[in-house]
Amino acid sequence: MTAQPEKVEINEVVLRDGLQNEPEFVATEDKIRLAERLSRTGIRRLEVTSFVSPRAIPNLRDAAEVLAGIERVPGVRYTALVPNVRGAERALQSNIDEVNLVMSIGEQHNLANMRMTCAQSLEQFADIMRVMEGSGVFVNGTLATTFGCPFDGRQPLDRILWGIEEYLALGIEGITIADTIGVANPRHVSEVVSTILSHHPTLPLTLHLHNTRDMGIANALAAYDAGIRSFDTSLGGIGGCPYAPGATGNVCTEDLVHMFHQCGVQTGSDLASLVKISKDLPEILGHDVPGFIMKAGTSERLYPFPGKHV
Amino acid sequence: MTAQPEKVEINEVVLRDGLQNEPEFVATEDKIRLAERLSRTGIRRLEVTSFVSPRAIPNLRDAAEVLAGIERVPGVRYTALVPNVRGAERALQSNIDEVNLVMSIGEQHNLANMRMTCAQSLEQFADIMRVMEGSGVFVNGTLATTFGCPFDGRQPLDRILWGIEEYLALGIEGITIADTIGVANPRHVSEVVSTILSHHPTLPLTLHLHNTRDMGIANALAAYDAGIRSFDTSLGGIGGCPYAPGATGNVCTEDLVHMFHQCGVQTGSDLASLVKISKDLPEILGHDVPGFIMKAGTSERLYPFPGKHV
Repeated sequence: MTAQPEKVEINEVVLRDGLQNEPEFVATEDKIRLAERLSRTGIRRLEVTSFVSPRAIPNLRDAAEVLAGIERVPGVRYTALVPNVRGAERALQSNIDEVNLVMSIGEQHNLANMRMTCAQSLEQFADIMRVMEGSGVFVNGTLATTFGCPFDGRQPLDRILWGIEEYLALGIEGITIADTIGVANPRHVSEVVSTILSHHPTLPLTLHLHNTRDMGIANALAAYDAGIRSFDTSLGGIGGCPYAPGATGNVCTEDLVHMFHQCGVQTGSDLASLVKISKDLPEILGHDVPGFIMKAGTSERLYPFPGKHV
Repeated sequence: MTAQPEKVEINEVVLRDGLQNEPEFVATEDKIRLAERLSRTGIRRLEVTSFVSPRAIPNLRDAAEVLAGIERVPGVRYTALVPNVRGAERALQSNIDEVNLVMSIGEQHNLANMRMTCAQSLEQFADIMRVMEGSGVFVNGTLATTFGCPFDGRQPLDRILWGIEEYLALGIEGITIADTIGVANPRHVSEVVSTILSHHPTLPLTLHLHNTRDMGIANALAAYDAGIRSFDTSLGGIGGCPYAPGATGNVCTEDLVHMFHQCGVQTGSDLASLVKISKDLPEILGHDVPGFIMKAGTSERLYPFPGKHV
C-alpha cells in the first residue's frame, strides 16, 4: 500500500446518520446552513439526507427541501440514502450526485431495520437499479453490521464477500462496509479490509465506523494501513443505532481528520473550519456532542507558562 | 516482535493520577476499598498513591494510611510516586514494592510541575537513589511530556534518549514514557518506542497515555506493535494535567483491556470485574467518568430482537 498517496477521502454523514436519531427535529434552514458550511471545508462527499418515509424517520422528512435549498459547491458530491424505488425517484428529482443503498449483512438486523429479508432487499435494489439506469448517478451500497450484528454477533468473512458480490452483480459501483453498532476492533478491521481488497483490489471501498467502544480512531488507522482510503464520519461524533442502546456516536469527523493530519495523511479538509462548525452543533442540537478535538484543541496547541519558578 | 507472547501488563494508576486532580477528596476508606478490589482483578501493578506534600496535592494527603490499610494480594506490586528524599523515606516506611520518580522531558513543564530544572531533578534523584540503596525496592522513572510539552511543544528524540540515559545512569531500573497532555499520535508513538527499544532492547518500558484527543487506544496499539508490553491506565478514564485545561483523562483501564482482549492480546485481568468497579466510580467521585465500555458493554454484547417483522 506504500505506493498509494498518503491521502484519504472524508464522506461527511452528520446530516443523515448524525441527525436521524436526534431527539429533536433540526430546522430545515439549520440543515441547509450546516451542509453549506461543511461543503466549504474541503470535504468532497456529503451525505445530505435520506429519502425514507417521513413516518420512519421524521427528522429527515425535509429531504427534498434540504437538497433544493443548498447552494452547491462544484467538486462536492451530494449523496442521499435511498431505501426503495420511491426514494430513488425522489432522489433523482432532487438532482442528487450519488445514492446510497443499505442492506445489513446480519439477516436479523436487516429484518429489524429494513423490515425485510436480505433476499427481499436485493430484489428491491434490482428495481432501484432500473430506476437509476441512464441517470449517470453513482450508486453506492452500504453493508450494515459488517463487523457484527446486535442480534447475531460477528459475521463470517464469506458472508461479507457474498454481500459485496451481490451488490456488484446489481451494478452497484462503490461499497461501504459499516460497523453499525461499534463492535469492530483493529485486528478484525485489518482482516476484513485485507480480505475484501484481495478479492476486489480496485473497488471504491468506504469504511463507516462508530466510536461506541472507543476503537473508532484505532479502527480507522488499521483500515488505512490495510488499504482503505475513504471514511464515513460525523461532525462532533454524533449519531447512533436505535437497536443498540448505548451504541451512540459515529466516528467524529474532526477527531479523525486531526488524527490523520497528525500522522501525515492528508484529508483535503480544513480542520480549523471543521472545529468551528462542530462547536456550533451543541446550540443547533440542544445538547453536548462527543467530539474530543472541539474541546481539547489540536496536538499543536500550546499553553502559557503558569508563572516563574525556581 | 512476533516472538514475544501476546500479553501486556496493566499498571493501574487511578488511585494516584486518577484521583490527584479530583475536585473533592476521596475518603481514605474508599481508596483502600478501591485498591483492594482492583488488586483482585488480576492486575499485577497498582500505583496506590503519591508521597508528595499534602499542600501540593491535598487529595493524596493520606498516602501512608492508604498503604497501611490495604490488605495486600501476593503477586501484586504496590507502587507510589515519590517526588523527593522525604517522600522516598515515607514510601519505604510504608513497605512499598516500587517507587516511581518523575521528571519532565520538557524543561518548562518540569519547572511548572516540579518547580525545578531537569538538572535539579536529576540531582535530587541521586539523593533518592542513596535512600533506596539496599532496600530491594524497584525504582521506576517516568519521563513526563515525552510526546510533547504544553509550553515547548514536541520534544526531540535525542532529548528523550538523553532522559532515559540519565535515569539508567542513576540506577533506575524501569522507565515510563508519558504522553502527559495527550498529544501523541500513533505514528509518533511508533517512532519514539522503536527508537528507544533499538537503543535499549531489554529495558522495562511502560507507556503512560492520555485520551485527550481520542488517540489513546490507537496509540496503545501502535506502541504494542512497536514492542511495548506495559501500560499505565486509569479506571473509568479519569485523571488529567492541571497545566493543560481540557486535557482530562488517562487512557481508560477497561477500554484498553477490552481492546487488547478483542485483538487477542491477554492482559491477565478480568474485564467484567473491572467494569463492575468502574461503574461504582461515579458514586465515589460524584460525577460521570469518560470510559466507554462501562456504558456500551463489550463487543460481544447481544441485544434482544425488537419484534417479529415480515
